[in-house]
Amino acid sequence: MSLDAIPIHVINPPPTEPGLTGNAPPLLRELSELVKRLLASGETSAIDLSALPLTPADLDWLQDKLGAGEISVTLQANGESTLNETACPGIWWVTHHNEQGAVTSQFIEVAFVPELVKAHPEDVQTGQEYLELLISDL
Amino acid sequence: MSLDAIPIHVINPPPTEPGLTGNAPPLLRELSELVKRLLASGETSAIDLSALPLTPADLDWLQDKLGAGEISVTLQANGESTLNETACPGIWWVTHHNEQGAVTSQFIEVAFVPELVKAHPEDVQTGQEYLELLISDL
Repeated sequence: MSLDAIPIHVINPPPTEPGLTGNAPPLLRELSELVKRLLASGETSAIDLSALPLTPADLDWLQDKLGAGEISVTLQANGESTLNETACPGIWWVTHHNEQGAVTSQFIEVAFVPELVKAHPEDVQTGQEYLELLISDL
Repeated sequence: MSLDAIPIHVINPPPTEPGLTGNAPPLLRELSELVKRLLASGETSAIDLSALPLTPADLDWLQDKLGAGEISVTLQANGESTLNETACPGIWWVTHHNEQGAVTSQFIEVAFVPELVKAHPEDVQTGQEYLELLISDL
């Protein structure tokens, strides 16, 4: 049999969107490990997306894969921060903006509740003193 | 000296807004106790505003006194719920709406973080399995 008789099928690689670097899919594997750790020990973690070689297309791909959850949090403090639950509970997409509205950093946080949403005891104490003032003015 | 010579000053009571019943101020005192309890023991609590004889004016007065904090949370599940931090950290104003957007109940929650914002371990587990499915499809 001559080589000419061997049928050749050209298999195209799956189409990739322009701008994708291939750096995003390994993050899903890392997130899976971090979620397992959260469940096993309660240990929380965060991935600083701004520190990784990810293009806007990579970030879109990742955001699309993780999906949108039921909870979105807005924090107003020297610019707006948004902390959005993904479709994977325990994984939160966190975006910080400056006072002009520009994105300054993006994180994926793995936690039952994002750290920034929790009231700190010293702030609660200050709030209680403010409340006592209100009451004494009644 | 005849009684006619005694000057009489009519002292008017401080003006109250129409609609105020006087039922709201005691709630500030109760909240102060609940916040103290949160700080002392971590015990959380909630006041069901819908179950109390409060007018819309009472609720406005209370909301105005407690003020607005930095954090607002939106939860989409069979209608929208909003969980807004007040100017007293640890005190959250929680409003539930039905799918038509009508308010169905209102609570004041005293907690470091409102219960509804926390991801439940069983949901995190389900999310982790979904993530594994995503990864096996890559």
